Amino acid sequence: VFQTTLAHIATQLDAELIGDPACMISAIATLQTATPCAISFLANPQYQAQLTASQAGGVIVGPRHRELAMARGATLVVSDPYLGFAKLTQWWVTQTRAVCEPGIHPSAVIDPRATVASTAHIGPLVVVQAQAVIGDGVEIGAHSFIGQRATIGAYTRLAPRVTFHADCHIGTHGLLHSGVVIGSDGFGFAPTQGRYEKIEQLGGVRIGHHVEIGANTCVDRGALEDTIIDEGVKLDNLIQIAHNVHIGAHAAMAGCVGVAGSTIIGAGCTVGGAAMILGHLNLAPGVHVSAASVVSRSISQPGQYSGFFPIADNASWEKNAAIVRNLTTLRDRVRRLEKI
Amino acid sequence: VFQTTLAHIATQLDAELIGDPACMISAIATLQTATPCAISFLANPQYQAQLTASQAGGVIVGPRHRELAMARGATLVVSDPYLGFAKLTQWWVTQTRAVCEPGIHPSAVIDPRATVASTAHIGPLVVVQAQAVIGDGVEIGAHSFIGQRATIGAYTRLAPRVTFHADCHIGTHGLLHSGVVIGSDGFGFAPTQGRYEKIEQLGGVRIGHHVEIGANTCVDRGALEDTIIDEGVKLDNLIQIAHNVHIGAHAAMAGCVGVAGSTIIGAGCTVGGAAMILGHLNLAPGVHVSAASVVSRSISQPGQYSGFFPIADNASWEKNAAIVRNLTTLRDRVRRLEKI
Amino acid sequence: VFQTTLAHIATQLDAELIGDPACMISAIATLQTATPCAISFLANPQYQAQLTASQAGGVIVGPRHRELAMARGATLVVSDPYLGFAKLTQWWVTQTRAVCEPGIHPSAVIDPRATVASTAHIGPLVVVQAQAVIGDGVEIGAHSFIGQRATIGAYTRLAPRVTFHADCHIGTHGLLHSGVVIGSDGFGFAPTQGRYEKIEQLGGVRIGHHVEIGANTCVDRGALEDTIIDEGVKLDNLIQIAHNVHIGAHAAMAGCVGVAGSTIIGAGCTVGGAAMILGHLNLAPGVHVSAASVVSRSISQPGQYSGFFPIADNASWEKNAAIVRNLTTLRDRVRRLEKI
Repeated sequence: VFQTTLAHIATQLDAELIGDPACMISAIATLQTATPCAISFLANPQYQAQLTASQAGGVIVGPRHRELAMARGATLVVSDPYLGFAKLTQWWVTQTRAVCEPGIHPSAVIDPRATVASTAHIGPLVVVQAQAVIGDGVEIGAHSFIGQRATIGAYTRLAPRVTFHADCHIGTHGLLHSGVVIGSDGFGFAPTQGRYEKIEQLGGVRIGHHVEIGANTCVDRGALEDTIIDEGVKLDNLIQIAHNVHIGAHAAMAGCVGVAGSTIIGAGCTVGGAAMILGHLNLAPGVHVSAASVVSRSISQPGQYSGFFPIADNASWEKNAAIVRNLTTLRDRVRRLEKI
Repeated sequence: VFQTTLAHIATQLDAELIGDPACMISAIATLQTATPCAISFLANPQYQAQLTASQAGGVIVGPRHRELAMARGATLVVSDPYLGFAKLTQWWVTQTRAVCEPGIHPSAVIDPRATVASTAHIGPLVVVQAQAVIGDGVEIGAHSFIGQRATIGAYTRLAPRVTFHADCHIGTHGLLHSGVVIGSDGFGFAPTQGRYEKIEQLGGVRIGHHVEIGANTCVDRGALEDTIIDEGVKLDNLIQIAHNVHIGAHAAMAGCVGVAGSTIIGAGCTVGGAAMILGHLNLAPGVHVSAASVVSRSISQPGQYSGFFPIADNASWEKNAAIVRNLTTLRDRVRRLEKI
Repeated sequence: VFQTTLAHIATQLDAELIGDPACMISAIATLQTATPCAISFLANPQYQAQLTASQAGGVIVGPRHRELAMARGATLVVSDPYLGFAKLTQWWVTQTRAVCEPGIHPSAVIDPRATVASTAHIGPLVVVQAQAVIGDGVEIGAHSFIGQRATIGAYTRLAPRVTFHADCHIGTHGLLHSGVVIGSDGFGFAPTQGRYEKIEQLGGVRIGHHVEIGANTCVDRGALEDTIIDEGVKLDNLIQIAHNVHIGAHAAMAGCVGVAGSTIIGAGCTVGGAAMILGHLNLAPGVHVSAASVVSRSISQPGQYSGFFPIADNASWEKNAAIVRNLTTLRDRVRRLEKI
């Protein structure tokens, strides 16, 4: 088991340490579950009561909770404790996870016309096709597929079983989770005589630096031009990004979201889980869509937008839904009363 | 083609048989489609009329339909006919499906530090990493991936193409369908200066015995502690289970459901298709959520809960939705009328 | 880079060409982005203004825009310009994409009892099990899996990483995208004593000719009879089709749709993104369901149907949702006023 000291952690986080620098730490934990061998953190002030009661060997806090934390025990003060916690987890992983050695697993099937950096790691049973370019320090997990002319930027990691199609591109320091499909065909057909004629999707997908995409999420290739995901975007699991969508920098979307074709999502937008954004819309930067809401029109003003039917016990819902189904009648009854 | 007799089936189901024990049966079918070579069942009393008209060689019924069934033809009486049907399908499969022979396919890539039971079946092109433990009678389908230190309990089956990440665990007699991802990173970031800093997900996933998980469903690993799925849980396809969710024993969820982070779902809950459960909530045991409903608050009382906008012809919906969008106005008009 | 002439394109599309037949074309583009080396098209009359301003080397139009287009420059006239565009993309792909050579990649694992046409292409690390039949001109992408007795009709293409289970069948000229799972178990259990007993799914999946299924979409096998997808159906990404659903010919569904068990969807229906269709329903041919709508009852009349809560700024939504939650109260207040 990995062990370190509070002093070492304080150095990593550039934190002020008040308490025993030699105290041994072997875990990161929440305030409630931390033992004296664990380090914890207080980011959300509503957990302040848990701070006082915590058994943690040390607690990372911001300047405003410095006194309260010191009264409890060992304290690490940083300007942003949630960011400090994030950086601690990142450093922790460098100390505890197995390193991927550079090299190509002998079971991988690499086209001789592909370019693979000597510092890249290619896992077992990976397929890399002709003219693909795999950058420095890239990790490609088992069972992943890289299509023709695709490029994977330096230090980007693909978990096992990622499918990254031909003519798609991702920048550096990205992370694609298992089951991701980048560059499947957009859904485009010309209706004719009661059936559909396929419109071949000739664009690709362009993904910026520092993008993370969750498990089983799909990003379709563009019809003529590329589907674009800008720098720093974070997508959760099971999201559908249709063809020719453009997601602005540092936008984030929770699981099960759908974005229909050609919609433009501004920088810094957030979309809650299972929200649905229709096609050919434009969301201004700084629009925040609540979970399970349906965006059916463009939104030009930043702010929080919501829209889902409130849940209730089934009998109440049935009654309310019946009235909703006939709201014009209720409105007309009010009109009639007003005319009396 | 597999054939058996009514007598043999009656023995398997511990059923009382009224009719010719030597009658040959080569299929299981619904009452409507059954031929004299097929066995059928009556579980839902609303199909009673179909019983009388059925051509089935034999029908499984409960005690209350014994006389009605006997008047038609050969009858197998069991205490719970739907359960009897379920057990019949299970026995049928043992007689008709190819057995997976124990052993490791030569194309599989097994780390020498992994432990694979000699009675386990490892399919073609499977990857098993170091320190993983594969139990007795386990079946791992083609293209599946088992990460470091993961454990697969005895008699659990993984369909082709399941990704089961490092430090995740499943009990015995489980069934994971194709495309399942267990242990992808939870969606955790610390926002800082207009971008997101990744919080590495240090927990794992712990799954109990007798759990079934549907195709392309994702279960994220926990941030610090494990995501937990208790014994007997059944999840359908394309479900998203976020980090640190806890699903209680024998809960069941239909397809396309999303459960956001840290939510606790009580034992025996059911969730209808495409329902969405927000994060950090607590659903008491025995809560039943209807399809397409959004759970935005904790629910402490068992019962059925619903909430979706009723569908209508498009013109009616547009009118009703416009009124919903201005319901405060309608309410204020009623208030004014009341004050007259 | 591929280059052709306007004359050559006109011949391919059976179009009347007005303009320089020798004009070189190396791209297809939208009216707005087209350069003189690109060919474009006007299908939607609302983009008429873009036509006049376009720099395209040639524009495909219908008869009604012939004069307008000619006033701008080189013009190709066809009866249906969107269909013409579709066919142009199809021809373009035949000229620009690498041809899949017939043959079986040496890394594929093919059961000797499978039948693979000599004109089929089997990619790297594909698994084909016993008694499977792969037709003429079929392409099976890397990492795909074909189960026992499954049949793949002539000229059908499977992208990399498709899982096509035992006893499932697809006709000719189909296209299955990455991550598709055909024939996973339907979600069927008999509840007994607080737990669930599995109902083995003994049916398969039958898919007609010219069917396209999007990335990570799942089609479950039937309980006793087959799940059926008729000719010409188009399914987008991340769709869930439950057991024993029947989708009629030339129906189309956008991403994230769910269809619950045993529902019958008529020919030519369309379903918008993230709509949810409950189980055991019947949708008549020509029913069109809007995005994000929940179909909770059978629909016997063709037409457009909708139902989702309108989005608003969060504060407005909260107020309106609170009133919706108590609509019976508002209705009762109106009643009382009427009785005065």
